[in-house]
Amino acid sequence: MADPLSEFELIEWLRLRTAAHPAVALGIGDDAALVRIPPPGECLVTVDMLMEGIDFSADADRRAVGRKSLAAGLSDIAAMGGLPLAAFPALALPKNNGRAVAESVYAGIEPLAREFGVAIAGGDTNSWDGPLVLSVTVLGRPIGAAPVRRNGARAGDWIVVTGEFGGSLLGKHLTFQPRVREAVALRGAAALHAMIDVSDGLAADLHHILRASSVGAILRAADVPISAAAHKMAGDRTPLEHALGDGEDFELLFTVSAADGRRLLASPPTEVRLSHIGEIVAERKCEIVDESGRRSPLPPLGWVHSI
Amino acid sequence: MADPLSEFELIEWLRLRTAAHPAVALGIGDDAALVRIPPPGECLVTVDMLMEGIDFSADADRRAVGRKSLAAGLSDIAAMGGLPLAAFPALALPKNNGRAVAESVYAGIEPLAREFGVAIAGGDTNSWDGPLVLSVTVLGRPIGAAPVRRNGARAGDWIVVTGEFGGSLLGKHLTFQPRVREAVALRGAAALHAMIDVSDGLAADLHHILRASSVGAILRAADVPISAAAHKMAGDRTPLEHALGDGEDFELLFTVSAADGRRLLASPPTEVRLSHIGEIVAERKCEIVDESGRRSPLPPLGWVHSI
Repeated sequence: MADPLSEFELIEWLRLRTAAHPAVALGIGDDAALVRIPPPGECLVTVDMLMEGIDFSADADRRAVGRKSLAAGLSDIAAMGGLPLAAFPALALPKNNGRAVAESVYAGIEPLAREFGVAIAGGDTNSWDGPLVLSVTVLGRPIGAAPVRRNGARAGDWIVVTGEFGGSLLGKHLTFQPRVREAVALRGAAALHAMIDVSDGLAADLHHILRASSVGAILRAADVPISAAAHKMAGDRTPLEHALGDGEDFELLFTVSAADGRRLLASPPTEVRLSHIGEIVAERKCEIVDESGRRSPLPPLGWVHSI
Repeated sequence: MADPLSEFELIEWLRLRTAAHPAVALGIGDDAALVRIPPPGECLVTVDMLMEGIDFSADADRRAVGRKSLAAGLSDIAAMGGLPLAAFPALALPKNNGRAVAESVYAGIEPLAREFGVAIAGGDTNSWDGPLVLSVTVLGRPIGAAPVRRNGARAGDWIVVTGEFGGSLLGKHLTFQPRVREAVALRGAAALHAMIDVSDGLAADLHHILRASSVGAILRAADVPISAAAHKMAGDRTPLEHALGDGEDFELLFTVSAADGRRLLASPPTEVRLSHIGEIVAERKCEIVDESGRRSPLPPLGWVHSI
């Protein structure tokens, strides 16, 4: 597989593999793609860059890495309450074996794109002596009148999450299912006040909502859904600490009125588990209550990328 | 400057620097941006990834590198006959001194964005032990009914270029002016049949048009505008060879009817030099005629990124 493949040949290979898509007026093969944005012509845009040694290990399966590079963007679009339309993967491939790496990466991207009806409409392909870098841009469209932002949480809101948290490093950070369908179902079932996808960590991403909304929160430790992986990883830190701090769970964290929250939990619009983990309060603090009723401050324990 | 800066602080720093922009309904600071695409809601999208050691040297001025990362995307949008709207820079920053590098990169991106009325509406910021990588996504809108593609060249068309070619490595590859205004002026003055921006090289990019349009071309060597830098670099290769093969000139290469070509050259709609360098022919060949009238095949001499 040391067969050198020119960028042109790879683009042609990729172009021939991409199916027609109603959103793509002009896809791979020109200076830019042309994407049709449905009325009113508002377009969600997110970019996620993944780097070998940071977001995946050097020996990680390249197919899983390709899949993750798209899934992270789909998760961002879902967190805005939107639907993804088109993706643009930009790759820095290792010179050695670049073709095989490219094919594996796309073999991970393509099935996920098909599953969510997302077009691969362009991108950029390069090679160098450095490690693998993937930067995927995803375009989407909001559902409903406006996207769900981080700044809409109100005192009295329930804080609700999908799925389970912690220990994603054991596998889920590569294999997670972006919560696109769940976001659509939730938007259909309730007025979501604020939403984010949990990439930095449950506590850190909750803090993002609190800061943007100028409110506080009280979480109940007993209600935080802790994954089996968080229990497996527990050592220096408890399973709860893993659940609050690990990050890369790519679950949805959102707030709704108490009435909507009660309704959602009583008849969930999605098969993915929903958990009511706490409430939004007016006072700008963030606390967690343990099972004996003791409150302690909950700092943004999530992983802070230090630059 | 070893002051570590968290990703959140950098995003906040950047958010506070970005001005409001009519195309940006929602900018930096949420899970995705929301960009307004003017009717009919068609959106040009391009991504350019630049890597240290490939697209710029390790000792290149970071400001110039940042500028180039945006300029390459603006050039792509111009080559479609479009207007850029919003840019999304994704960065992999070196851990050591990342903040200073980020500030320099943005100090190069921002003035160019302002000059062309482009919003910095999002992106991604990361740090690692590896070299600097920049991947910039640019959204734009077509002018007129449809974008100018590569596949519209017809036998009898004039082949016309803006500016001069060759030796861009001596500086122009970092400092080039994306031909956005020129593309607008040219579209207003003539029916452009096919267009591309010259990044791979004059010959290579002409071949892209020929292949997409299923036609051939005959160039006149004497009419190829050769830059002073191409003369300065001449050694093993002639100035003409540099002009045809070096690439990264980021000039526009386009075809128009002979009648339109004559009109354009007689009263150019732009101050940038226009040169009529040859004609499109029906036969699928590509030749260059020297001053003594001798024809030789012109292969795509441009730099082929080998993967």
